[in-house]
Parts: sequence; structure tokens; C-alpha cells
Amino acid sequence: MTPDPVPAVPTRVPVALEGRAYDILVGRGLLAGAGERLAALKARAAAVVSDDNVAPLHGDALLASLRGAGLRADLVTVPPGEGSKSWASLARVCDAILGHRIERGDLVVALGGGVVGDLAGFAAAIVRRGVRFVQIPTSLLAQVDSSVGGKTGINSAHGKNLVGAFHQPSLVLADTALLDTLPLREARAGYAEVVKYGLIDDEAFFGWCEAHWERVLGGGPERDQAVAQSCRAKAAVVVRDEREDGDRALLNLGHTFAHALERVTAYDSRRLVHGEAVAIGLALAFRFSTRLGLCPGQDARRVAAHLARAGLPTRLAEVPGGAGTPEALLDAMAQDKKVKDGQLTFILARGIGRSFIAPGIAAADVRAFLAEAFAETGDAGS
Amino acid sequence: MTPDPVPAVPTRVPVALEGRAYDILVGRGLLAGAGERLAALKARAAAVVSDDNVAPLHGDALLASLRGAGLRADLVTVPPGEGSKSWASLARVCDAILGHRIERGDLVVALGGGVVGDLAGFAAAIVRRGVRFVQIPTSLLAQVDSSVGGKTGINSAHGKNLVGAFHQPSLVLADTALLDTLPLREARAGYAEVVKYGLIDDEAFFGWCEAHWERVLGGGPERDQAVAQSCRAKAAVVVRDEREDGDRALLNLGHTFAHALERVTAYDSRRLVHGEAVAIGLALAFRFSTRLGLCPGQDARRVAAHLARAGLPTRLAEVPGGAGTPEALLDAMAQDKKVKDGQLTFILARGIGRSFIAPGIAAADVRAFLAEAFAETGDAGS
Repeated sequence: MTPDPVPAVPTRVPVALEGRAYDILVGRGLLAGAGERLAALKARAAAVVSDDNVAPLHGDALLASLRGAGLRADLVTVPPGEGSKSWASLARVCDAILGHRIERGDLVVALGGGVVGDLAGFAAAIVRRGVRFVQIPTSLLAQVDSSVGGKTGINSAHGKNLVGAFHQPSLVLADTALLDTLPLREARAGYAEVVKYGLIDDEAFFGWCEAHWERVLGGGPERDQAVAQSCRAKAAVVVRDEREDGDRALLNLGHTFAHALERVTAYDSRRLVHGEAVAIGLALAFRFSTRLGLCPGQDARRVAAHLARAGLPTRLAEVPGGAGTPEALLDAMAQDKKVKDGQLTFILARGIGRSFIAPGIAAADVRAFLAEAFAETGDAGS
Repeated sequence: MTPDPVPAVPTRVPVALEGRAYDILVGRGLLAGAGERLAALKARAAAVVSDDNVAPLHGDALLASLRGAGLRADLVTVPPGEGSKSWASLARVCDAILGHRIERGDLVVALGGGVVGDLAGFAAAIVRRGVRFVQIPTSLLAQVDSSVGGKTGINSAHGKNLVGAFHQPSLVLADTALLDTLPLREARAGYAEVVKYGLIDDEAFFGWCEAHWERVLGGGPERDQAVAQSCRAKAAVVVRDEREDGDRALLNLGHTFAHALERVTAYDSRRLVHGEAVAIGLALAFRFSTRLGLCPGQDARRVAAHLARAGLPTRLAEVPGGAGTPEALLDAMAQDKKVKDGQLTFILARGIGRSFIAPGIAAADVRAFLAEAFAETGDAGS
């Protein structure tokens, strides 16, 4: 084993969006140098948005770095958890940003996980009709998924992420050293999204995950590789289809099931965090593909087996407190934003790395599949 | 006098934004044909947003037209007035739009004045990260100004329109017959924005206004001409500079003063409506230009005289309940979004039709000018 030094140069993943190109930097120790990198963006001030878990850990270091680079910097915090993706938090954060006199050329900085990134990014999109923002994701999930691609938003009473904006960051700093303090459960949840990129269109990367998952979760240099590769995969899709008129929907592999599960468990992170819902969703998407005669059963079993080995749930029976009923899940899906002209659209797979967009899936097929999935109690999923 | 028939073909004002080009149609009787025109946009459903004043007058006609053309149509209303450009109204309208199951291909329709247009447009911008919307402005002010150009938003505790989005409509239907029921005060307020286009860069149009203002306010065919010409003027500026990085700021002629006045009068429409604040703002902008040695005093007097003749206020002394103090107005300006790097930017003029962007105006000059403007009690403004 080689040691794991702070690399002199972080890995750069460019996101080549025309007119709004930006970099994702991946590496250990980026937080300490954030001030210099943000000052290079020619802002005079930054409003840092974080949550009450992350701010005590990393807030002071970031503010010191920003102020050291000559930026006026202030901190706004929200309570941790999905509950902060609300109208009330959005209004409070926007007002706080305005109170800190952030102008059109200044920056909003998201320091936190997916919730903070989605909320702060949305606030940046609408304060003064748009100010620039920088993502400093502090969870594995945010580093490999939500901090890349410009989707921002809050939840509505009608569903998750139903109100928001496309607003690309000007820079993403994925400091992998920040992941060292993550609880294992959060690391596993983020890992579900890493695996997803292999399942979408890169069977070799899925194979790499099967071989290296313990070191990814354990914080070895493989974790940096996994983060960089995930960002690369996501960036490639986003550049092809920023506003999800086509291919970008592939990133929703597993997510129609996942969002429905989060909805029926009332976004209660004690029961299910997003990445766990995605793990179950991925396993279900492959099993549903098999049931529809599209995907070899062997591939579906391989997917579930790997997720389970990494400590992730793969079956409805594993949802603490239960996953509701087939009807409740179907209702939750019908309000999901991937509904078009009243029909259900799924991301299905012809095998590992061979996913595709499947519009017009009959509700009856989904219902029958869910009924089976609810009926099982044993290890049918693995 | 020739009669005023319903023209077979409305006047079309194209807004040639790349990738998002749309038409403004100006003419009498467009509301009745709205369904057909919206169906041509290939939507299946429309959520109509209106207020409790306008909906009883025109809501049924619009819903009938939409349903007659095969669209699913529902109505959402908010209380009339600036108070509805709030977080609470925004959340309620977004939730209602989602409740009506508006999907990515569907439409939000704004039926009302500037408040409804700004609110509904912003809701359309953020529901499902953006659905299309159609403006059906029912006030002269909205037909000549706010329904064109894609600026949407709500007010914040820190100031007017400080939270919002650029979101271009897919179509604007300016049915001038709807203006027949407008109170004179509202017609005059809208007329202030008509005059503004002449003052910005079209002295000939200002001269036309001086000659025809009574028929514009009285609802003659000149009103249609004034609406179409105003839309043309605004569209030309917006196409040059959609996001106000440059020239578009010219549209703010009179508005730095106007927004400050609205702020110190607490957006109380009993004291001052937006167009009245703009009228005072236009007169002040020209007098300030004169005071700075930029503009002949004769032009400033001509501007104030015309606005006053049309029944609009032009002096601080005319603000019911008073316009506060020079310091309060200056504070209100400093929070305006046209502040850049801590300096005040005004739109000033070298004469009628010769406006320009003037950054770096010293606060001391503004303060001294305001002190004079407050001191006068007579007809110094005209």
C-alpha cells in the first residue's frame, strides 16, 4: 500500500457547458485553499450556506480561508435534513443572502450535503434573478451526484424537488478529506450513486466497484478515484442534455422507485436516506427489467448482491416501518416529475451498463411487480 | 373619426430572442380566441393565475375559451395588490399549479396586471424547474411593460423584485379591449411607462405622445398604437440585452427614484402606484440630469409638463403622506439591485430621447438634489 499524501494538484473534471463551463476539483485538502480559488472568480463577497451539523465542523476553516483571500464572508445555517428543502428555509436563506448585501458579481457558497447544495443553489438562482454559486460538497453523495449538474430545488407538498431551477455552479470543490468524518451509513448511501454510474453505461466501472468497494468506503485513494470517475460520468451526461429533454433522464436509474419510497416514508431519514432508497430502487429497476423480459436475471442478481455486500438495502422488506402498499407507491410515482402525458416513464436496463429510457410503461405491470416485491420476505432480492 | 372595429388581424410584435423567440399580439378581442392560440402551443393543460379583481371580470371567458379548444384549464387566484408578490403567495401558487398536475409541456397563464404577471411568471419559472407561460396582461402598465421581457419575481423584506428569475413567455396576448374597464388612475399610471420609451431614445414618439395622450387614455385606436409601439421599443432593448448586463438598464429610466419612493411609502397603492412613482421618477431623473449640467432645463420642464398634463404626479410634494426624507430615499436606493460594487448607478439624460447609463454617481450629489426637491412646495417641477 502506498501512502495517501495530499496531492499537489487535485484531479480536474471539466464540465464543458457552452458559455457556462466550470471545473470540478477532486482532492484532499481543497477547503483550506478555497479562499484563493474563489477570489480568482473576482467576487468581493460570499455568503456561505451550511447546516447545523457541518458548520461547526468546517465553517470556521472556510470563513477563515475566504477572509484570508480578501473576501467579505458571512455564514447562514439551516437545520440538517430534508426538512430544510422547504419554502420557509428558502425564504430565510434568500433574505439572509440579501441581508449580507450579496450583489450580482458575488457568490453563494454551499458547504454541506445534498440538501444544502440544492437549497443554496436554488437561492443563488433566484436572489437578484441569479448570482453565481460554488459547491463545496461534504458528503460522498453530494460529491458524486447532487453537486454536479446544476439541478437545484426544494420539495413541495406534491413531491420531491418539484420546485427549483437549473443553475450551474461556477466551481465545485470536492475535498475528499471532508469525507473522513462521515458516518458509515452516509458513506454507503453515497456509494449507491457511485454504483449507479456503472450500471447506467459502464460495466467495467461496475466491475471496478465490485473489486474496490471496501477501499472506497474505507477512504483509500480509491475513494478519490471513485469520486472523480462519478463526476466525469455525470458531467458527460449533463453536457449532452443539460435540461433533461433526453439522455439526462438515465441518471434517474433507480430513482422512480427511490423517490416513491422516500415519499411513503415521509422523507424520514431515520427510516431511509436518499442513497438507501436509491439502492433499493436500483435493485428493483433491474428486477423489473428482468420481469419484463428485458434483462438477464443473472445481472439483476449481481446488482443486488453487490449492493447488499456493501451494506445497502435492496428489498422493500428492508425499509424500517415498511414501504407502504403497491398502490401507495404507484400513487407516489404518478406525481413524480418523470410523468409525461399521463404515462409512466422508467429507466430500465438490458443488462449491467445497458440502461435506457422506457416511456409508456403500463401501470398494471408496475402494480403486479410491486405486489410480488412486497410479498417476498426472504432473500429473493439477492 | 373612423370607427374602432375589431381588427381581423392583431398587430404582431416579434421578440427575436435566439432559441426562445415569441410574439406579442396587440389588438381588441384577443381573449376570446386565447384557447385556439394556446392549443397551438401543443399544451394539454393550463393553470390560469389571476387576482380577485380580474378573475370575476375575465376569468370565465378565458377558461371557456381554453376548454373550448380542448385544454384542461383551472384557475388560481391571489388577492390583488403588491402584497401578493410574497413568499407566501408564491408557495401557494406553485402548490396550486402542481395540484392541477401541470407537467413540463403544459402552460401557466398569467391573467392580470404586473403583480399577477410577475408572480405567475416566477412560479412558471420554478415549478418543475420551468414550465412555459403565457401572459395575458389586463392593465395598460402590464401591456406596455411588465408582460414583455421575461423579468419575473417577488419582493423581499430587503426590496422590490429582489427574488426572481428571467423566464420568457411563450406568447403575450395584449387584448386592448380589456383596458376599457380600467379606472383612469390605472390608465394614467400605465401611460407613464409609455412616455418613458419616448424619453429613453425616441424623441419623435414623445412628441406623438404630447399630441395624442388624451386618445391613448381615452381608449381610441391610438391606445393600440401606443401599446404596440411600447412593446416594440421594449422588445428591441430586451433582444439586445436579455439579462441586463448592459443596455437593458435604460428601461430603468426613472426607476431608481421610483423604487425608492415605493419603498418609503411601503408599497401602499392607496398612496402611490408603480406608474405614479415612475412619473415622479422620470421628472426627477431629468431634473437631476439638468442639475448635473447634463440636460437642458427646457427638456426637464417639458417632460414634467407633459406628465402633469396627463394627470400624473411629478414632484415629491405630491406623494400622499409625504415621501420620507432625503436620507430615507437614499437608503432605499442603496439597497436597489442596480447597486454595483457599492456605487450608485442612475439612468440620466442629455435631453429627451437621449438617456444613458451613468454609473458612479456620488451619494452626496443625490443627497443635495433630493434636499432641494423636498424643499420645494410650489410648481417648481412643472
